[in-house]
Order: sequence, then structure tokens, then C-alpha cells
Amino acid sequence: MSQAVDAVEVIATKRDGGQLSNQQIDWVIAAYTRGEVAEEQMSALAMAILLNGMTRAEVFRWTEAMISSGVRMQLAPQALGGRPTTDKHSTGGVGDKITLPLAPLVAACGAAVPQLSGRGLGHTGGTLDKLESIAGWRATLTGDEFMAQLREVGAVICAASDDLAPADKKLYRLRDVTGTVESIPLIASSIMSKKIAEGTGALVLDVKVGSGAFMKDLGRARELAETMVALGTDHGVRTVALLTDMQTPLGLTAGNALEVRESVEVLQGGGPADVVELTLALASEMLEAAGLAGVDPADRLQDGSAMDVWRRMVQAQGGDPDAPLPEARETHSVPAPADGVLVGLDAHAVGVAAWRLGAGRARKEDPVQAGAGVVMHAKPGATVRGGEPLFTLHTDTPERFERAAEVLSAAVVIAPEGSSPDLPPLVLDRVVAR
Amino acid sequence: MSQAVDAVEVIATKRDGGQLSNQQIDWVIAAYTRGEVAEEQMSALAMAILLNGMTRAEVFRWTEAMISSGVRMQLAPQALGGRPTTDKHSTGGVGDKITLPLAPLVAACGAAVPQLSGRGLGHTGGTLDKLESIAGWRATLTGDEFMAQLREVGAVICAASDDLAPADKKLYRLRDVTGTVESIPLIASSIMSKKIAEGTGALVLDVKVGSGAFMKDLGRARELAETMVALGTDHGVRTVALLTDMQTPLGLTAGNALEVRESVEVLQGGGPADVVELTLALASEMLEAAGLAGVDPADRLQDGSAMDVWRRMVQAQGGDPDAPLPEARETHSVPAPADGVLVGLDAHAVGVAAWRLGAGRARKEDPVQAGAGVVMHAKPGATVRGGEPLFTLHTDTPERFERAAEVLSAAVVIAPEGSSPDLPPLVLDRVVAR
Repeated sequence: MSQAVDAVEVIATKRDGGQLSNQQIDWVIAAYTRGEVAEEQMSALAMAILLNGMTRAEVFRWTEAMISSGVRMQLAPQALGGRPTTDKHSTGGVGDKITLPLAPLVAACGAAVPQLSGRGLGHTGGTLDKLESIAGWRATLTGDEFMAQLREVGAVICAASDDLAPADKKLYRLRDVTGTVESIPLIASSIMSKKIAEGTGALVLDVKVGSGAFMKDLGRARELAETMVALGTDHGVRTVALLTDMQTPLGLTAGNALEVRESVEVLQGGGPADVVELTLALASEMLEAAGLAGVDPADRLQDGSAMDVWRRMVQAQGGDPDAPLPEARETHSVPAPADGVLVGLDAHAVGVAAWRLGAGRARKEDPVQAGAGVVMHAKPGATVRGGEPLFTLHTDTPERFERAAEVLSAAVVIAPEGSSPDLPPLVLDRVVAR
Repeated sequence: MSQAVDAVEVIATKRDGGQLSNQQIDWVIAAYTRGEVAEEQMSALAMAILLNGMTRAEVFRWTEAMISSGVRMQLAPQALGGRPTTDKHSTGGVGDKITLPLAPLVAACGAAVPQLSGRGLGHTGGTLDKLESIAGWRATLTGDEFMAQLREVGAVICAASDDLAPADKKLYRLRDVTGTVESIPLIASSIMSKKIAEGTGALVLDVKVGSGAFMKDLGRARELAETMVALGTDHGVRTVALLTDMQTPLGLTAGNALEVRESVEVLQGGGPADVVELTLALASEMLEAAGLAGVDPADRLQDGSAMDVWRRMVQAQGGDPDAPLPEARETHSVPAPADGVLVGLDAHAVGVAAWRLGAGRARKEDPVQAGAGVVMHAKPGATVRGGEPLFTLHTDTPERFERAAEVLSAAVVIAPEGSSPDLPPLVLDRVVAR
């Protein structure tokens, strides 16, 4: 090459609608990770990508470069007692506690689940925040602890180490403050760089659609799913995606300890029907992608073997599965406004209410309340009575009740008795590699 | 207002193709100036503006907010011995030394010229860099010195003070490193915020078009001119623009001291025809806009009164108009490659050659060589002889000759004898307020 690549030249290429070369992408990601490309340069590039898009080849290389900014883990089945690896990633929704019952369930079926998770920001909770409501449980493991637990228990849910796609960590923080989150190439490469670097052999994506999800409409959700499936496939990871409904919250709880309790109910063979349905659907996909299609996960929920893996998984990370879960200091009941049939329960509003009660954080450094959140006493389709409790709000900071109740009052649609809600199926579609 | 404005919300509005409100614009410029909106947030916004544009109302308010980030000067004619103020701004070209003869010429015709200028970056030189090749001359004046010189001499060319549109200073630096220079709303508001804040009553814009100019095509140059004329007019400044050719360099020199020498030739009643033509065209516009249309500037060049103002202007800023100008340590002759008629002499290439010889800077903090540059021995239309000097290169760093000569070799087009070049007129068009 006759000349060093220059940040302004890379930005100008994308600004003017051009395609970034492999050399430009490799250089800009590596130089950004080293701090040689400034934050203000990367944010201008991110905005140009958001507005002008990237081709499949560019997204592939961009993801590759983010993986190469750190280490790519090796998780060979022979190092894991013959267990094939399979993982799941959700784009995030309200009441989405599926990872908690799912990881031990799939491990109980013979796979290894290396789930590296994050914390929540905004109205959707984070898996690590939920698990941290269990006394003693810790999110951080050494590499050796991670491998040993994966081999012996079959499931790990923990924080990603700093050497996994460090470029993505920097870029994710930058996008959050610069209005450049909503770009399908940037979302897809962010998710997939971490999942591919984590070393899983198979991956199932749960791409949520609806008011409580990042993607509000099916078309964009499908585009995101197709981009991610292509990225996984191109990197040798067997990848499939389900498009699932997030117009209504999942289950009857939104909040950290509240969701752990509901997850344990599912592992005990009970729990809300929608949580069970989605857990089993995702488990089947994960097992099929891992070459374990002959196992029926529903059996493992009923026979207690999934629950057994859960207990060992929690204990292996210092947690006490028998310790009582934290409860919020105060509760407040929100009654149904009228008699009738609940035909709408807006997921976004429930998420915002839980967040306002203290279950979520506004900034990365904020703490969360383990006991805070919303319990729903009815889901769409149920008959409700005016004045009877529709929600119970939980918080340590009762001054927040009012603003949470306010957002919930707009979340509920009650139709005359005899009506039935027009609900989409939970699994809207399935996207496979083409 | 129910809620504080937030940087991400402002960015998202423009990202999604919306129109920024007055409140959003006022807040984002003020908060950026105070350092509360981060550089990476402003660069994302600048890229969104570049790609999605701004309405006339938005550009007006953006400019207004940049003016309000600092002081707006008052230059009433009664404080200037009755002289009306009039100024000129050029978007920058190769060999564009017009400000040097123009300011004293217009002052000699009875106006006051409050020219706040900048330094050069890249292949076009800066007016202050040129004047600093005069022994003793200083670019920085106090407010009192500025007013006294404007009143007594009628012309000041000096550096803008830090309290004039400080938001623009910050944003200009940011745009330079983030690929967000090429936006007509951002260019227009940057230029006009400084010129309006400077307090001139009339303004003539020299918008250059062609290879050596920032605007390569007439359509975009016209759009920029119309935007700036509208901005000036809307702010009560009588504003007119000339679109002028910058396919070929202006005059026979590009370089700091070399251009001062050529400017003095013009003030002595000589100099290259194109420099004289453009100086007189701009002087007439400046005088007309200032209400002094009865004066013929050509007379003032011939009778020595413009030269007299030049000497007083240089002396008032500590310079010695009689001191010999600096000369480069070494020169190198570049011969014409063949016999024929010179039909093309690319301005951009000449600018880059002068820059490589040391006349310009790559980064803001670089020094410039006063004596470096290019002397042209022929302009398009002239007959040349193969082997005879076409250019003389001047530099203190002769290792740079080769790369300068290299770019010049591609700049020259020679046609068989008897050909004549297809040259556009120097003044391509005139844009007035609508």
C-alpha cells in the first residue's frame, strides 16, 4: 500500500455512499481500539454507517475486525466431556427471563451452554442483574473456572471478559451517547462479534418485535435476524433466529428477583404458559443446531433434571439456590379500571414502570434494586373486575409508585366482556441461513 | 418547556430527517460551547446534518446561535469618521491574494474594511500567513487598536479574536477531523457567523468554483452562495456573491511572500490582468453594497492612493512596507515539456505543489515557509517552448522539489500551436438577495 489509511478518508468513503475496503475496516477498528482514531471520528463514521448502510461484505469484515480486536475462545467438545456448545441471544424484551430456565434446561439435554451476558440499560433488564439477586452469586469467572463449570455443569451464565471484542465495548458505549444505536449493521456486528468470539458452535437468536422490543416492526426485525444469521453462518457458527412477539411482556413479572422466582417456577415444571412455550421453542432450536435433535426438552423440565442443573450452576458461581430471594420494602396495588376482558397490555409501559420502580438503570454506573418491579395479575385474554388488583408494584423507594402507576394506566386496554384479544402467535417466524 | 433538551434527542431528530427546533439548536450550540455536549455527540450531529441537510430556517437559527456564543461587534459609521463598513470573504483558492490589494483599495475609496482573516490549511494559503512574511507585521490587535486603525486608515486585516463566534472555532476544528467539512449548511453558517459577528454593514462573497476551490462544480457553489447571501440578508447585512473561476490559479504566484510581491505590483498599477480584474470587480461590489457606487476604484489604483493606504495599513500593524521580502534559499526551474500553446494549468495541482514546497501547512500547528511557493511563467493562452522554464519552484527545503515537480507535471496541458484554450470568464455569475 502506498499510503497509510486515514480516519477522515474512511469517514468520507462511507459519507459519500461508498463501500469500505477490507483494509479500511481493519485499520479503523484496530486504530479505534488503540485510541488512535478519536471518539469523535468513530461517531461520525457510525452516523454515516447508520444513514448510508453497509453491504453484507462490509458487515462481515467489520464483525471480523471487532472479533480480532480481542481473543476468540476455543470450546472444542472434546474439552467439554463431549458436549457440543450451543447458545442463545435475545435482543431484549420486558419480562424476558428466558435465559435463566433455558441454559440449565439445554445443559440437562446434553449440550454445553457458554452464555456470556450483560447488564441492563433502560427499560429492559439484564440477565446478570437478575442472577445477582441470588445471595452470593457472582458474575465474574476466570477462564479456568468458566471451562471447568462448562465441562462439569454444562451451563455458565457470566460476564464477558474484557478481552472479548474490546472494540465492541468501546463502540457500544459511544453509540449509546451519540444517537447511533439504531443501525442494523452496527447492532448485528455488535451482537455477533461477541457471540462468535465466545466460541459457541451453534447459536439461536431470539429477535423480539413490538413495543417492548428494540425493533418495533417485523420488517426491520427480519432484516436484523437475516443479517445476524448470515454473519454467524459466514463465521462457521450454526445460526438460526426466531422472531418473537414483544408487544406484551413475557410472563407475569418484570424485575430482577421477581423474574428469578418465576424462572424457578418454570424449572419446577410450572410457570406462565408463554415463558414455558418460548423456553421450549428456543431449547429445541438450540439442541437441533447442536446436533442433539433427538432429546425432548419438555421431559427434562418435568423430571427435575433441568432444576438440578440450575442448582449446580448457581452453586458453582457462589450462589445459594435455597436462600430466600430479596423482596422490596414496599408494595402498592394498581386496580383494574373497569370490568371486562384485558385485550392489551403494553410491554414498553410495563418495562418503563419496572425501570422507574428501581429494577433498571438510567446510566451504566447506576445500581439496581433486586426486589423492585411489577407483578401482573392478568395477561391479555383474562377477564378482569374493576377495582381488583391488576398490578402489584414493588420498590424500596415508594416515592416512585406514582410515576410507575402513571405509565401503567396508559398500558392497559379493557374491552367489554365477551371480547377476545387479537394476539399474534408468540413465535412469529423462523429465519435460517440461505 | 417540560423537559431539558438532551443531546441524543437532538441528534436523533436530525438523523431521522426531522427539522431541529429553535430550542434544540440554541441549546446544542450553547451546551457544546460550554463543553456539556461532547465532541463525539457534535460530530454525529454534524454528520447527520451533512447527510440530511437543514432548512433555511434551521441554518438561520444555527448561525444566530453561533453568533450568540460570543460577542457581536458594533461598527457604526459615526465611530469611523463617517466611513460605511464593507468586507469581502473568499471561500479560498490557489494564488488568491486578492484581499491584500482589495482592502486598501476599497479604503482609499472611502469605506472602512474590517477584514478578520484566517490562516491557511491544506493547499490554499491564508491571508494572515501571506502578510506575516512582511518584517514586523503582526496579526493580533486589541479591540481599541482595531477601531483606531479602521477609523484612521480605513482598512484592517487581522486575526479574529477568541470571543467572536467561539462555537464556530470549536466546530470548525471538529469538522476538519471528522469528515464533516463538506456540508453547505455548515460551511455557510461557519463563514457567515464570523462575518456577521464582526459587525460589517455590507459583505461581498467570492465563491470559487473549480479544481483549486472547495466547490468543484457550479451547482453546489451557487447553492452555497445563495445560502450565504440569504443568511447575511436575514441578519441585516447587505450581502452579494460573485461566483468566480478557480480552475486556473489567480495571478502568476502561489506562496506567501511571492503573493505579497504580486499584490504590491497591483497596488503600483501593474500586476497580472486576472488579479487586477477580480480586485476591481470585488471592489465595485463592495463599494456599491456600502452605498459608495460613485467611486471608480480603477482610478485609485492608478493615482497611488490605494498604495498609500496599503503602506499605512502595514505600518499600523508594525510592518515595514519597504523591507525586502523573504526569499527561499533555493529555486528550481521546471521546463515546458513541448512546444505549443498552454491550454490548461490546473489550480489544484499548483496549490498542492506550493503546499509541498512549504508554503502551506498540513496541521494547524505547522509553521509555513515565507519564501516558499510556485512562480508561473505562463498562463493559459500563452505560447510556450519545450525546455524553457514554465515554473520556478521556491523552497528552503530542496528535498521537496521532486514531489512538487511531480504534481505540476500532471497540471499542464499543451496543445499544438494555433490552438486556443477554452477558458471560462473569471466572474461566472452574481448572486443577490431574493
